[in-house]
Amino acid sequence: MNRRDFNRLVAAGTAGLAVGAAVPDEAQALTMPELPQDDMMKVMTRFVDDLAEGDPKAKERISPSVPRQIAMIAYPGMFPLDLLGPLSVFSDLLSTQIHLVWKQKQQVSAGRGVTLTTTPYSECPQKLDVVFVPGGTVGTIAAMKDAETMAFLRSRAESTRYITSVCTGSMVLGAAGLLKGYKATSHWLTHELLPQFGATPVKSRVVEDRNRITGAGVTAGLDFALLITARLAGENYAKAEQLNIEYDPDPPFKAGTVKGAGPLVAGAMSRMYASSLEAFKGAVAATKPA
Amino acid sequence: MNRRDFNRLVAAGTAGLAVGAAVPDEAQALTMPELPQDDMMKVMTRFVDDLAEGDPKAKERISPSVPRQIAMIAYPGMFPLDLLGPLSVFSDLLSTQIHLVWKQKQQVSAGRGVTLTTTPYSECPQKLDVVFVPGGTVGTIAAMKDAETMAFLRSRAESTRYITSVCTGSMVLGAAGLLKGYKATSHWLTHELLPQFGATPVKSRVVEDRNRITGAGVTAGLDFALLITARLAGENYAKAEQLNIEYDPDPPFKAGTVKGAGPLVAGAMSRMYASSLEAFKGAVAATKPA
Repeated sequence: MNRRDFNRLVAAGTAGLAVGAAVPDEAQALTMPELPQDDMMKVMTRFVDDLAEGDPKAKERISPSVPRQIAMIAYPGMFPLDLLGPLSVFSDLLSTQIHLVWKQKQQVSAGRGVTLTTTPYSECPQKLDVVFVPGGTVGTIAAMKDAETMAFLRSRAESTRYITSVCTGSMVLGAAGLLKGYKATSHWLTHELLPQFGATPVKSRVVEDRNRITGAGVTAGLDFALLITARLAGENYAKAEQLNIEYDPDPPFKAGTVKGAGPLVAGAMSRMYASSLEAFKGAVAATKPA
Repeated sequence: MNRRDFNRLVAAGTAGLAVGAAVPDEAQALTMPELPQDDMMKVMTRFVDDLAEGDPKAKERISPSVPRQIAMIAYPGMFPLDLLGPLSVFSDLLSTQIHLVWKQKQQVSAGRGVTLTTTPYSECPQKLDVVFVPGGTVGTIAAMKDAETMAFLRSRAESTRYITSVCTGSMVLGAAGLLKGYKATSHWLTHELLPQFGATPVKSRVVEDRNRITGAGVTAGLDFALLITARLAGENYAKAEQLNIEYDPDPPFKAGTVKGAGPLVAGAMSRMYASSLEAFKGAVAATKPA
């Protein structure tokens, strides 16, 4: 790998995993943290070679000559972790541009002092490797009803390699007509609504049906993003990222499903979310293609 | 719960879980998403009652009269998900103020268009329920060497209920002398360095020893934050949050540990991170209390 190749490798964005976890922004991707750039180039060349096992096609998948393009819709009111989990994993892909897109350039709050800066839909590339929709409740319903968001998703449907969502983000894909005839999943709250979009609901952490890849609620975004990483950059690279983020989960309780949480907790949650579910039902009825 | 109680419940910040996932910022916490405030109060009263199983002490733990105080050090160069995972879970605690703290008020980049707005250490409450340190590489090493950060952590050591970290954040706690005589964990890369701080290294997802609670790498922050939630708000509330974020993990590979990743992937990662490990070793030697 020569210097130009290396610059291309990192120029698309943060070199993420390549520079450890230490790159606070895109600008710093080119100033390697603890090593001079020449040394870092050698390290990265070796890293890519190791994971590609000497196969030129595998190398090209790990670090494509033409940067990958990923668009993530960052709408106000999304559940922040739905987006931030996958974003963190996607940020570790080499030679990858990530676009946080919304109707306009905006500082979108993700709560508690966290802000996302968006790019307008109009400035997002046409040809995408991944388009991604996070979930939420009221913000998600607003996105389902938003003509510009629907138009953006439909405009990218044919030219995008993977059309994806996590959590109630599948409601937005469904509203755009993009799940019709596909197997899909959603947050447990809205899972029952998938058939209304002509989708076949599957109770699985991540559901892959041709180029539709949907994840279950919130934290399914990690399982989802590692699968996407494998599809884009190969299994060795996905495994390296899984080790990087030490994803060997061990939840303190078995309460991650309605059944596992038990009737007391699941009942309390269902009652708390009852009005949200009703609001989703209304939105589904209103946005369902005629 | 009367209106004042409910305002207190949400006024501390986003009412998080209480209002679904739809609250984009603190201001909107008081304008409930799909329900009028009076109705939302009823819903929340019922929710708290359900989870408290009618026990007044349990109610007080779920929604304390005096808001909880959590400080999370948001330093430049942290690994974003180390902080954003736990932040998302902590944001769903009721009656809880979260302070993203750093040396000064600053827009700290968390990469890819994500920004955290920090509060200066000097404005952070003295009495905290939780102080938390995320990990990273070069940024973490800088934090270990930063006198203000060390002084902040030491100043809160006696008055804080839980002193915590995720990932290489334990290196920062160690550098401040706060892990001496405690069992602890860290990201797999730096786990071997824990004894240098007088800590007893434990290979576990989350390690709890008296009031020190440390998590392993990056995604261990979810397991960690649910345990903290249980300690602060009780097991029912923690289970409700686990169901809320549908944390029923199912990674696509078994590569979340060095052993599981296998020699090819783990070898590539270890070589890629070799200079980071050396930099950590140097920092540990330099910051070790005499």
